[in-house]
Amino acid sequence: MAVDEKVERIEARKSENFSEWYTQVLIRTGFVDYSEVSGCIVFKPPAYFAWQTIMNAIDAEFKEVGIEDTYFPLLIPEKLLAKESEHFEGFIPEVAWVTETGKTKLDERLAIRPTSETIMYRSFSKWIRSWRDLPLRYNQWNNVLRWEFKHPTPLIRSREFLWNEGHSVFATEEEAIAERDQVIGIYLKILKEYFAVPGIVGRKSNNEKFAGAVASYSVEHVMPDGWALQGPDHHYDGRNFSEAFDIKFLDKEGKMVYAYQNTFAISSRELAVLVATHGDDRGLVMPPKLAYVQIVIVPIYKKDNKDRIDLFAKKVYEQLKKHFRVKLDDRDGYSPGYKYNDWEMKGVPVRLEIGEKDIANDSVMSVRRDTGEKAPIKASEVEHEIRSMMTAIHNNLYNKAAEFLKSHVHRAHTYDDFKMILEEKKGIITAPWCEGRECEVRIKEETGAKITNIPVEQGKFADRCIYCGKKATCEANFARSY
Amino acid sequence: MAVDEKVERIEARKSENFSEWYTQVLIRTGFVDYSEVSGCIVFKPPAYFAWQTIMNAIDAEFKEVGIEDTYFPLLIPEKLLAKESEHFEGFIPEVAWVTETGKTKLDERLAIRPTSETIMYRSFSKWIRSWRDLPLRYNQWNNVLRWEFKHPTPLIRSREFLWNEGHSVFATEEEAIAERDQVIGIYLKILKEYFAVPGIVGRKSNNEKFAGAVASYSVEHVMPDGWALQGPDHHYDGRNFSEAFDIKFLDKEGKMVYAYQNTFAISSRELAVLVATHGDDRGLVMPPKLAYVQIVIVPIYKKDNKDRIDLFAKKVYEQLKKHFRVKLDDRDGYSPGYKYNDWEMKGVPVRLEIGEKDIANDSVMSVRRDTGEKAPIKASEVEHEIRSMMTAIHNNLYNKAAEFLKSHVHRAHTYDDFKMILEEKKGIITAPWCEGRECEVRIKEETGAKITNIPVEQGKFADRCIYCGKKATCEANFARSY
Repeated sequence: MAVDEKVERIEARKSENFSEWYTQVLIRTGFVDYSEVSGCIVFKPPAYFAWQTIMNAIDAEFKEVGIEDTYFPLLIPEKLLAKESEHFEGFIPEVAWVTETGKTKLDERLAIRPTSETIMYRSFSKWIRSWRDLPLRYNQWNNVLRWEFKHPTPLIRSREFLWNEGHSVFATEEEAIAERDQVIGIYLKILKEYFAVPGIVGRKSNNEKFAGAVASYSVEHVMPDGWALQGPDHHYDGRNFSEAFDIKFLDKEGKMVYAYQNTFAISSRELAVLVATHGDDRGLVMPPKLAYVQIVIVPIYKKDNKDRIDLFAKKVYEQLKKHFRVKLDDRDGYSPGYKYNDWEMKGVPVRLEIGEKDIANDSVMSVRRDTGEKAPIKASEVEHEIRSMMTAIHNNLYNKAAEFLKSHVHRAHTYDDFKMILEEKKGIITAPWCEGRECEVRIKEETGAKITNIPVEQGKFADRCIYCGKKATCEANFARSY
Repeated sequence: MAVDEKVERIEARKSENFSEWYTQVLIRTGFVDYSEVSGCIVFKPPAYFAWQTIMNAIDAEFKEVGIEDTYFPLLIPEKLLAKESEHFEGFIPEVAWVTETGKTKLDERLAIRPTSETIMYRSFSKWIRSWRDLPLRYNQWNNVLRWEFKHPTPLIRSREFLWNEGHSVFATEEEAIAERDQVIGIYLKILKEYFAVPGIVGRKSNNEKFAGAVASYSVEHVMPDGWALQGPDHHYDGRNFSEAFDIKFLDKEGKMVYAYQNTFAISSRELAVLVATHGDDRGLVMPPKLAYVQIVIVPIYKKDNKDRIDLFAKKVYEQLKKHFRVKLDDRDGYSPGYKYNDWEMKGVPVRLEIGEKDIANDSVMSVRRDTGEKAPIKASEVEHEIRSMMTAIHNNLYNKAAEFLKSHVHRAHTYDDFKMILEEKKGIITAPWCEGRECEVRIKEETGAKITNIPVEQGKFADRCIYCGKKATCEANFARSY
């Protein structure tokens, strides 16, 4: 039966209309889809696979350093959510409330967790008695809901998202603060090794930090349109929550004291960075470790050679299947060209073409998705060669992403420079700042750029705040940000 | 500093007061805990670890047979939930409704998913166009909420629980039905290999089947108190949902036809079976594969030998750590007896005691949690020996569970027999049945026993229905059931 070879294509250009390109790539390649609930999306198999892989990789690292997994309830009673007022104020505008169950009105509204500090810490206060119970480092992988009223964008601003939320409790401030490098280190490692994506680590300004935190640290990305996007973060909460939730313990000297706490998270929003960073005008470009299909084999038939081609292709497929996620696309009635386009759109890292000439040479023709390079591979060396190719693809993607990030961080010496760079070059602008809230707020009002973070690695900086001209105490990164 | 050696103990007897024993074991051993929301529990690390292990094991099996993971939204618009009326009627009394977000009243109520047929099938109807898109076999691992108004019991009847929900679509009825053995086979395999628990496979009566299904199959367990508890299930939904949700496809002959569907699930309720089946009066007994800690090493100090004991214990620990989840309990100030009790309660499969005599013999003393057997193991053979011991423990637990199940399935020949067995022996009663709804309903009213399932393996049965005396068409299993 004839097949309708209507070809799905990405019609928008990444460089010209990023936001249109981004949603076309997400939806048309079958990565995610819209749902019946505005702002909530469906993770299709390739997206969920990537998330599952990241989750497992991070979880193994967490377990290694002693962070343990738990699962706490989805619903939080309103009274509990309101216990820490700064935190509550921060989340209340975005909370979805359950008010009825079955045919019964509830006496007290239940919030769908926007984050789980309040319900977790209530339990922590029951469980923690003595210094022997510390540190307590609990994590959960779950779904949270934040009913944002801004225009939702799949993965970037989804009302429901998936994440890890780590919540740890320490006896001392030093231990709590020391966790930061460990956790941020794990996130950076996974970003590099799985996402093939770099980031800029720094401290949030007081104005931008997490509701309830003493100090927030984040990993920041730059998207292809030059806007920043916040990645994983780690918050030192001091005793803000332990005092509100009565998390006290008997210390070694026999005194009851409040504990020190941290929270940390990486979310499915990171998949947006993945797609945006590596994708091109033909669609997704998946780094090998997160690719749902790593290799696609496309047989090229001529009259009367189908059986021989299929036999050969099947042999290569069986050989690779033990080591890679591989697909043999022997669908009837579709042309090789249609298949190439289809799998390119989906971002499969390596395509293997097998035709008459290839069989004659006992080889396959490999095509890299990231560079388009074609190279024949001897059938006997296919596993080994493809393994190297996967490493090369991963490294190429990472290096390109690092290059892009580097070329999108600018330094401004005057406020005029600052505004000019923001308009013309976009990206992140590193500028001296007095750490005054007023300068930060004014800059944001006047330019739309907020402080993404204050980089941990401080260069030499001019001694005047870019806005007020008073003494600068640090160099901060500014950007328009998602 | 002196330690308060107040010993937590399980005070209830499993054989005398199962329900009190059950909650004491769950709560006092730190497996789960109550939360601030009635009917919703906290999975502490040992419980979540077991769930995560099961999830990964089943997921690998699913992937192997072509079942793919997705993630669909938590919230379902009321209109969508109401599309299949039988299904809707079944779930409506238990639905938690979101009616407000932030400070805004919603126009339409949103249900927290009690199950995801309706939101998934809406997407399926968009995605499925032709026979080439089938089979589509999607799964998700998520949390669901069913606001039961009966007295909640942790894990057994929790308002929020974790599960897999598989939803597959086939072109033909034959393919749909053929999936059942595959999926039930996977569940049984994991039950046997991880939970060390058997079950009885059978078809649900029409009265007891899933709301919306044509035929439901379940795995049934018997709990220590003789009540049945339903395990994983697989439902053939025919075209009930495909017609309601317009899941049509162009078949090979070019006709638009409705698809055939299945759903299947295993839930965190299964952890209740795990705990109840293997536990004893001293607490949890964990099968090795699901044990959060598999081996605990307890050093026994005498005056002046602490350094030597610690050195030896540390060596054994390092050796085992590569292969097992092992804990070296070198906590200061706790007696060995306290530690034994603590880890026994938590169900750790193997304890290794290391004292002066053991060092002298270059060995460790092993104690099995399941049997209490003590045996010295040469230090050089510890890895190998413990590996065999773990297999032996697993097999012993499975065999005991299978023996218990066997001894709790009875055959009744008359209705008087039936009632007598139900009162005195409890468990499952296999009895001939005419498949009439009225007999089923009357039996339930009169005895409290419902049909758990109609076993796939039908023995020879008497030719008269146990209730009405008319011709029996099958042999069904009856039990009082959770």
